[in-house]
Amino acid sequence: MRFLSDNTGTVCPEILAALGQANHGLAAPYGEDEWTARLDGALGAFFGVELRAFAALTGTAANALALATLSPPYGAIFAHEQAHIVTDECGAPGFFSGGAQLAPLPGEHGRLAATTLATALALPVDLHHVQPAALSLTQPTECGTVYRPRDIEQLAALAHARGLKVHMDGARFANALAFLDCHPGDVSWRAGVDVLSFGATKTGALAAEAVVFFDPALVRDFELRRKRAGQLLSKSRYVAAQLLAYIESGLWKRNALRTNALAQRIGAAASSALLHPVEANEVFLRLGVPRRHALREAGFEFYDSGPEEAGEARFVVAWDQRESDVQALCEALGRH
Amino acid sequence: MRFLSDNTGTVCPEILAALGQANHGLAAPYGEDEWTARLDGALGAFFGVELRAFAALTGTAANALALATLSPPYGAIFAHEQAHIVTDECGAPGFFSGGAQLAPLPGEHGRLAATTLATALALPVDLHHVQPAALSLTQPTECGTVYRPRDIEQLAALAHARGLKVHMDGARFANALAFLDCHPGDVSWRAGVDVLSFGATKTGALAAEAVVFFDPALVRDFELRRKRAGQLLSKSRYVAAQLLAYIESGLWKRNALRTNALAQRIGAAASSALLHPVEANEVFLRLGVPRRHALREAGFEFYDSGPEEAGEARFVVAWDQRESDVQALCEALGRH
Amino acid sequence: MRFLSDNTGTVCPEILAALGQANHGLAAPYGEDEWTARLDGALGAFFGVELRAFAALTGTAANALALATLSPPYGAIFAHEQAHIVTDECGAPGFFSGGAQLAPLPGEHGRLAATTLATALALPVDLHHVQPAALSLTQPTECGTVYRPRDIEQLAALAHARGLKVHMDGARFANALAFLDCHPGDVSWRAGVDVLSFGATKTGALAAEAVVFFDPALVRDFELRRKRAGQLLSKSRYVAAQLLAYIESGLWKRNALRTNALAQRIGAAASSALLHPVEANEVFLRLGVPRRHALREAGFEFYDSGPEEAGEARFVVAWDQRESDVQALCEALGRH
Amino acid sequence: MRFLSDNTGTVCPEILAALGQANHGLAAPYGEDEWTARLDGALGAFFGVELRAFAALTGTAANALALATLSPPYGAIFAHEQAHIVTDECGAPGFFSGGAQLAPLPGEHGRLAATTLATALALPVDLHHVQPAALSLTQPTECGTVYRPRDIEQLAALAHARGLKVHMDGARFANALAFLDCHPGDVSWRAGVDVLSFGATKTGALAAEAVVFFDPALVRDFELRRKRAGQLLSKSRYVAAQLLAYIESGLWKRNALRTNALAQRIGAAASSALLHPVEANEVFLRLGVPRRHALREAGFEFYDSGPEEAGEARFVVAWDQRESDVQALCEALGRH
Repeated sequence: MRFLSDNTGTVCPEILAALGQANHGLAAPYGEDEWTARLDGALGAFFGVELRAFAALTGTAANALALATLSPPYGAIFAHEQAHIVTDECGAPGFFSGGAQLAPLPGEHGRLAATTLATALALPVDLHHVQPAALSLTQPTECGTVYRPRDIEQLAALAHARGLKVHMDGARFANALAFLDCHPGDVSWRAGVDVLSFGATKTGALAAEAVVFFDPALVRDFELRRKRAGQLLSKSRYVAAQLLAYIESGLWKRNALRTNALAQRIGAAASSALLHPVEANEVFLRLGVPRRHALREAGFEFYDSGPEEAGEARFVVAWDQRESDVQALCEALGRH
Repeated sequence: MRFLSDNTGTVCPEILAALGQANHGLAAPYGEDEWTARLDGALGAFFGVELRAFAALTGTAANALALATLSPPYGAIFAHEQAHIVTDECGAPGFFSGGAQLAPLPGEHGRLAATTLATALALPVDLHHVQPAALSLTQPTECGTVYRPRDIEQLAALAHARGLKVHMDGARFANALAFLDCHPGDVSWRAGVDVLSFGATKTGALAAEAVVFFDPALVRDFELRRKRAGQLLSKSRYVAAQLLAYIESGLWKRNALRTNALAQRIGAAASSALLHPVEANEVFLRLGVPRRHALREAGFEFYDSGPEEAGEARFVVAWDQRESDVQALCEALGRH
Repeated sequence: MRFLSDNTGTVCPEILAALGQANHGLAAPYGEDEWTARLDGALGAFFGVELRAFAALTGTAANALALATLSPPYGAIFAHEQAHIVTDECGAPGFFSGGAQLAPLPGEHGRLAATTLATALALPVDLHHVQPAALSLTQPTECGTVYRPRDIEQLAALAHARGLKVHMDGARFANALAFLDCHPGDVSWRAGVDVLSFGATKTGALAAEAVVFFDPALVRDFELRRKRAGQLLSKSRYVAAQLLAYIESGLWKRNALRTNALAQRIGAAASSALLHPVEANEVFLRLGVPRRHALREAGFEFYDSGPEEAGEARFVVAWDQRESDVQALCEALGRH
Repeated sequence: MRFLSDNTGTVCPEILAALGQANHGLAAPYGEDEWTARLDGALGAFFGVELRAFAALTGTAANALALATLSPPYGAIFAHEQAHIVTDECGAPGFFSGGAQLAPLPGEHGRLAATTLATALALPVDLHHVQPAALSLTQPTECGTVYRPRDIEQLAALAHARGLKVHMDGARFANALAFLDCHPGDVSWRAGVDVLSFGATKTGALAAEAVVFFDPALVRDFELRRKRAGQLLSKSRYVAAQLLAYIESGLWKRNALRTNALAQRIGAAASSALLHPVEANEVFLRLGVPRRHALREAGFEFYDSGPEEAGEARFVVAWDQRESDVQALCEALGRH
């Protein structure tokens, strides 16, 4: 029973159907097709604002392309020290940007606090320093917690006041929306986000991330970087069709509500071991090494969190996870 | 009627079916799935040699990742001056390699001649020069012509004698195989190719390119570069499944034979205007500006070749191009 | 007797004296010293226009830093195919710019012709191409010839009309000025040059190049790139002092006139073998392999030009070359 | 009275004399001169081992070039969080390496503790992480403290056990040697250092850093990177002559002993305010904002250390600092 990550899941039937429906007739390649032409409108309706949206194929590429557009090669990119861009992308932001430097900051439960950012941004900067260029927030965070709209507003305001652009890594953005039950604009452009990596893969797509620009000035640079990075699909209709189905069918919400709820069931079954509040679809437990081992022996697959000896574990639910898997995990956790 | 490129085509039914068949159960992400596990074996059987194969999502990424693995940042990459990596990838080789310099060489009908390469490689090299690192051959070439096994052997031998590695851009490799009717090994590893970008997208896949390493020493570097470039799919089973279906169903051949044959019909209908022999699926015609304009007025879509005023045109057939389109084009060409 | 290059020369007494004069008292580092503070004014007076000038330590760095400021990583940099940036900087422009692609163009006697550039710039550009960003002219050219003010005006106008910036590699700029006997502005800003690499090393300095921005908008980006590239000297007074002495003592002219004149004597001694007109301080001769060999046997050091078997040779005079060396070379050339 | 940094100093007479002595006759450029030819031998004698040494022009370039040779673009470079490469080189390591990621670690008084490094290196690494590639130690540290030979041995052994290479930033290496009164080999190759940036500028040279390779396997890559970065001087004799004079005249020791002693006098004059032990030539004091302000009003120039409101200050002595300056500073500190 796999609780490794939500990307263990299959492709949602609506997405597969959308691929099938797009599969007729010859279409102009490289984003000149009619599906891609609808992206700006569909995502604009979703977010309630005029915007420019571009498809990318992985979350790593979406994040790193967005950040390369926001930061010069001598820029500093502020982010939580556990952010995916800092820890799990094999240095992609440095690669795509031509050497921008990550400025990792600490923060409880995966969240950056405004005071922490304010202190970091107050340090003097001169010619010898990398130049503060961007703030990257992860929503939900890598600890499965969710920034409230007000949190993002505060952080973004601090960043903007210093001339930084604000990026959001929303690989599981749907889970945050489902948890907050708010308008998508409330935790993006209305709160000060300039560019959002809006992931669909983890919540049911095959491979589709939208990079959403609420600030259109940066768009041409992004398009050229995307092409050059091999992220512009020739048969681009098939990635656009995924994003359209994801947004327009409402599957993002259905899947996010389900995985959030199942994650909360797991959290509730081991509430005394919880490392972080369970808000979106990730559960972090301090199990101890023997109990963690026993769970694996019992057939559960999941990742360690932190160093081996800490005995911590992360559980994530796939959109199509069988309820019986979750039930079995809850029982196993209860037994221990 | 679109003759823009073979990437205007849909996804072949066998590929779509393979996606459906892979769409059950949770699978370990990032290439740890059972479909990816079969890639080395399936491609090894196809090429008749032990090899390592990796999926990438676009031809640009496959080429640039392979070249970045073959060339240091101060390397020189020799290629035909019309090669896709030189003209149509927005500088991707320079980006992925950290600044390697392209060394474009001329050659009739898109092919590099051994004497041209030999002359280029005979120039003295010292500390002030970019260091010859790789030769990239395009098979079939950008002019739709095909290198014979002996051609590749000669070019690869020259490169190897100078310490260069040999890359092949095989975005339409199936078309070359279908034209030559030879074993896949004859124009790859047996002829001296070290790394092959083996494209499936243009011949029927959704988005799938295999980067095939006949020299396994380079593999770890490649894997890290691929991750860092956002080309490692989380739901990697879906790209592996495409490649497996592409190879194992024989669709590569069926589609390549069909598009080659249709291209030759077009070539035959305008034989006096042919700029290059029609060997694989590309037809280049010197039409003159007015005739080219008239064809477009008549509803045919295709790209210019060369500067606007040259009046040249390129026609490529999609794997699922309707025969009636081709018939109509042939008639239109005949009329002029 | 060395005719390898003008950089075989010593440091001119005026320069050495300037180093000595700067050598008292503690000075603020990293360009905050009083010598550096005078650079803009001194070079502004020389060029007859307000400008911003920065010191760099080598010609390669001056060129590549300037080009990185003018071109995005996905840019194309047009230059003569024999330009130093194309052939002799180990790929520095690609490195400093993050992968910009050189677009080498042919041209007689090292000069780009306006028609050649116009043709290159007329080619259609879309998302798949590197984006034309900069034109780099070498003055004097790598063949020792000199662009006339009108030549540069034409080329720069073509570049500007297409939105490109114009860079000039003036490693031997003094020799061009001495040959033309024109105002420095006539072959720089008045003719459309945006950024000039103005070399002093070859004409008598120890190690000093000024990067001169006639377009101040680009300056901050350049300063950060220079620091990051390790080209901002901590004891910057010593490079500024060289540049000031170079300009203000008139030694640039004295040295350039002398080396031009000696080069012309060499050219006159072998006029039938001349490959290019001798305008600035470089003489290219087609000697044939045996005669070239004989000259080396007789104790003359110089570089081959072109492939070994072409039998061509390049002679450059150092600012402090003994006249007897030149006399001996002329006689040796005359004897053959 | 300037206590900003040791790079405010002039050029030591021995160095200036060496420049003068090198200033005769034409010399082959780009490191082919007789002075450069002596570098390996002179530095080998100094360090007591066969080595390869190369000149660079700034500390930033020396460090970043060395690190780019030690780390792939997807590498992680471990260093103290206050290391110059982390805080004061405008991202140079990321630039020169093509995007390697810094992994900053905490440590008291500027020193990395073995346990801290051991913990960091014990974290699991897979395809998604930057790959541990190098450890960079600063000797003396940015806090003016000095690693003992045994400290370096332990740290280097940990690094080597995990396959990392060890770099040392020795911008003030002479000060560490003078403080320890040990053999130069004891805190470099014998302790496990693979590559040393051995600075001469701060201790009396004009602009000269030696990059010393105790592991010759990496040398060719370094040479090409140096050329490409514009750090290979054409008139290279003048940087080699500086390094030779620096080593062979013993001025490194004379200057380092003097500046260390003066720094200790300053430290003794304000011992209750000391933030770190004064071992090499840097004194860090917690003065409080008003007292710091008063010192500046009294004519002393120095940098803040840490955020403005912390009231901390750094004092560094130039090799040619007047003793009366130091006396005045000590008195002013005593008065407060």
